[in-house]
Amino acid sequence: MRVLVLGGDGYLGWPTALHLSRSGYEVGIADNFARRGYDLEIGVDSLVPIAPLQRRIECWEEVSGKQLELFVGDLTEEAFVYNMVGSFLPDAVVHFAEQRSAPYSMVDRKHAVYTQVNNVVGTLNLLYAIADTDPSIHLVKLGTMGEYGTPNIDIEEGYIEITHRGRTDVLPFPKQPGSFYHLSKVHDSHNIAFCCRVWGLRSTDLNQGVVYGQSTPETTLHPDLATRFDYDAVFGTVLNRFVIQAAAGEALTVYGKGGQTRGFLDLRDTLACVELAIRHPAQPGEFRVFNQFTESFSVNELAEKVSVAAGGAEIVHLEDPRVELEEHYYRAAHTKLLDLGLLPFLLDNDLLTELLAIARSHIDRLDPSVLRPQVSWRSTSSSLGRAPKWQSDGAPQREGRPSDRSI
Amino acid sequence: MRVLVLGGDGYLGWPTALHLSRSGYEVGIADNFARRGYDLEIGVDSLVPIAPLQRRIECWEEVSGKQLELFVGDLTEEAFVYNMVGSFLPDAVVHFAEQRSAPYSMVDRKHAVYTQVNNVVGTLNLLYAIADTDPSIHLVKLGTMGEYGTPNIDIEEGYIEITHRGRTDVLPFPKQPGSFYHLSKVHDSHNIAFCCRVWGLRSTDLNQGVVYGQSTPETTLHPDLATRFDYDAVFGTVLNRFVIQAAAGEALTVYGKGGQTRGFLDLRDTLACVELAIRHPAQPGEFRVFNQFTESFSVNELAEKVSVAAGGAEIVHLEDPRVELEEHYYRAAHTKLLDLGLLPFLLDNDLLTELLAIARSHIDRLDPSVLRPQVSWRSTSSSLGRAPKWQSDGAPQREGRPSDRSI
Repeated sequence: MRVLVLGGDGYLGWPTALHLSRSGYEVGIADNFARRGYDLEIGVDSLVPIAPLQRRIECWEEVSGKQLELFVGDLTEEAFVYNMVGSFLPDAVVHFAEQRSAPYSMVDRKHAVYTQVNNVVGTLNLLYAIADTDPSIHLVKLGTMGEYGTPNIDIEEGYIEITHRGRTDVLPFPKQPGSFYHLSKVHDSHNIAFCCRVWGLRSTDLNQGVVYGQSTPETTLHPDLATRFDYDAVFGTVLNRFVIQAAAGEALTVYGKGGQTRGFLDLRDTLACVELAIRHPAQPGEFRVFNQFTESFSVNELAEKVSVAAGGAEIVHLEDPRVELEEHYYRAAHTKLLDLGLLPFLLDNDLLTELLAIARSHIDRLDPSVLRPQVSWRSTSSSLGRAPKWQSDGAPQREGRPSDRSI
Repeated sequence: MRVLVLGGDGYLGWPTALHLSRSGYEVGIADNFARRGYDLEIGVDSLVPIAPLQRRIECWEEVSGKQLELFVGDLTEEAFVYNMVGSFLPDAVVHFAEQRSAPYSMVDRKHAVYTQVNNVVGTLNLLYAIADTDPSIHLVKLGTMGEYGTPNIDIEEGYIEITHRGRTDVLPFPKQPGSFYHLSKVHDSHNIAFCCRVWGLRSTDLNQGVVYGQSTPETTLHPDLATRFDYDAVFGTVLNRFVIQAAAGEALTVYGKGGQTRGFLDLRDTLACVELAIRHPAQPGEFRVFNQFTESFSVNELAEKVSVAAGGAEIVHLEDPRVELEEHYYRAAHTKLLDLGLLPFLLDNDLLTELLAIARSHIDRLDPSVLRPQVSWRSTSSSLGRAPKWQSDGAPQREGRPSDRSI
């Protein structure tokens, strides 16, 4: 079976490609290196060093004897997408290739428009290329649990049966996304569902929770196979932030009251879920939604767990940069992947201890300044990247005036 | 009160601008002439001739003594939007400025991407410009009843109370749009709702039905004030098609079984509804949805009405170029505008007789070939515009070979 992994240089795309390759799939990787570009723009880097993609692929061949076909290009370019799909002729496409940071999408107008155009147009091009090349290609699309928001009723997997004024229908679950990024995924979901309906495409939308973890059986085979460990306030997720803060001996920063509850899953379960979706494809014309997470935690619960694993880190509360409910009802179905055979890794002290060890072993690469939240949901224009130089000592430094250090 | 009408050169935008100007509002108009460009692309024209926008504005000043401020530019250009909003400083913005044809959006990949990027980015720019200029500006946005699709339950106005597993919440009504155009409006609705939530913007989403009619008290004051009368298969709507076919002595073409039921309203009610929305603005932070139509008809019912008004036109059925249910339940709430005081014009024989008279008086401008459906929902690539020449006599005409006529 042939699988294209789009966004195969990213935090999840890379270990997914390795996992599928090791499992016997013929794997192609596509990437435009946008993710590494965001690092350059913000002035941050993965805590764990990552090799260039070409070196990663070379290393995987050395370690496993298996080849990964590489397609360097951008999904928003029609010719690239058609040529890639037409030449690789995949049975399934796993689509990670979107801008996936909520804060990044909320920086300002430019970043909001970039996120929505990049994600929506890339997916539209892919849908057309699949329809024109072979409508039986199974599109496995990474969505997010954040598409649902936090309704005051149980969240179902994509659809909900509604009885209203004496009539009943099964309809798409209402969406209340909380950032321009999450909105772009909602737009994608609507577009894909439509293409399944009119062209008979087959697609699985993986509404994924927040992923934690950094090691898989494949990435640990060689340092050049490592995947990213993001901790900055724009691309890092909450559990990574807590782990790094604990490793650095800093207080764990909870935004707002900390009652925000989300679905979470282990990186290794992402790989298992993607493979389950590929092995059990959607039917022609079917738009199938799986809620891809294994456990729900509030931010306070996560902070508590990390604090315990680290031997008692302090927990402090900062103002929440997002506009979101800080205490709310949260219960979401996630049985479809379990029904297909998923055996989840749960978040335990061993995993946290391992993450803390990884963080400590690279602590010399830590830039604590990028842990501070920089993007406010209430502002239409946040400044991105590290604090401007003049903030570091409290005194503005005019351009052209030499700093103390340079004298 | 100051009102900006975006897309003020279009079928609805122009008469809306005149109506508001006559009613005492200070009116600005923005347009990029995209609508006239689609005519050129397809090779069609409004049945009723329309004057250039500058002449329209000049004529309105001659007739009424009132001025309309003109902004020529594109909403996808940040600087244009910010400069316009910042210099005009409107109390309300009425946003018609989107690509609004479902068949046009379904032509091929390029038209799908254009429609979604144009509509979504234009609206995003507007949301940012409003937030940065004055968040109290009321955004009156044209949506469509087509956002809902045809669920098997009653359609409510934007939101629905759902009781599920013992808990209750009021959530956005689930959306099942039926074209890339309708999808773009769903994307807009989600984006706008979010901006109201995070930035406290105020917006009314007018989920409009299919508009019919060509005359308003203002457009009939001078021929140069006339608005469009579209009848081609890409931009014309079903009632206009039937009227033109009846006026031309052709059979009325119903697509599929004709049980497709939609909400409809008179052009004059569009103007009244927009003004009601402006006069009774949404609250800060409120995203309000009005279902803007007055009556529901099936396509068969419309054909029957036109046939009767025309003295017995033949009705024929063609294959449906769309993917849609041809028979279905349809019942949609539309009380909020009535509650604000709307007194609807209903579709009666007098209105149809007037439309038939307008069509007959311009029948010399009719090109019957553009009435045929050209865009198939099942195809990823339809050819746009009039039938290729070689189809007109059934014999392919090779390039370079002189036709009989040219000999």
